[in-house]
Parts: sequence; structure tokens; C-alpha cells
Amino acid sequence: MNIENKLGEVLRKYRKKMGFSQEELAFRCGLERVYISMIERGQRKPTVHTMFIICKELRIRPSAFFNEIEESLIDFKFED
Amino acid sequence: MNIENKLGEVLRKYRKKMGFSQEELAFRCGLERVYISMIERGQRKPTVHTMFIICKELRIRPSAFFNEIEESLIDFKFED
Repeated sequence: MNIENKLGEVLRKYRKKMGFSQEELAFRCGLERVYISMIERGQRKPTVHTMFIICKELRIRPSAFFNEIEESLIDFKFED
Repeated sequence: MNIENKLGEVLRKYRKKMGFSQEELAFRCGLERVYISMIERGQRKPTVHTMFIICKELRIRPSAFFNEIEESLIDFKFED
């Protein structure tokens, strides 16, 4: 699984956990609903900046959010 | 301090820790040296994807990297 697909999956999980529609999350973040939808489907490569704003609205620390992504990337070896 | 400035500061710290020049890091990541330079000066908003690639070369987990950034963002409140 690549980074974008996993990022989209984790984003959808936390959005639903907060009970937000894509539209509500987009509104809170100052983004377009279709952009949230495309991130969730792994069709966009969001910036760190955008993900910090999204994480803030989802009340999750970016480090915790990215930890879930890196755990799934078995072809990514980050440390010796 | 904003996200980009802090991200650049943390990136420079870990690049130097690995003993890489901007040019060497750029080469390893398949990026331009000037792009690394601009990220370090807070003049670019890199994607999550790019930062995962950079973190891999710097042998740091993205979650650890982003943890250092969020710790410094006192105006960002991530959790209740």
C-alpha cells in the first residue's frame, strides 16, 4: 500500500470517528469537499501544512496520525 | 513560529546530524538541491509524500520528525 492510499484510509477513519461529513470537515479546514474526497481516495498528495490543519480539526496529533501511516509501509525502513 | 519555518529548522538539524550536504540529501531523494534549501528556509510547503522520502534518507520516523514540529506550535491545539 502506498503513502497516499494509507493516508486517505487513516483520514477517513478519524473523520468518521469525529462524526464529520466530508463537507463539514472541509468547511472547518477552509478546503473544498472534493479535495477531502480526493485525499481519502489517495488521489492527492496533500502538503504537511494541510495535514496539520486537518489533524487539528480531527483532534489528533499529526505525529500520531503519521505513526499509523508509517506502521503500514513495510517497504519503508526509517531507522537502522 | 509557523509550520514551514519549524519544519525547515528540524529538517536542517537532522540533515546535519547525518552529515549530508543539501546536495547529497537532494540526490538521495531525487529532488533538486534548491528545493531542499527552500524547504529549510520555510519557503516551500512540502507534501507528506516528499517528507516521508526525506525522512527515510535521514533515518528518522516521520512521526518523530513531526512530533518535534508540533511541540513548538503552541497556537496549535491538537487534542482536548
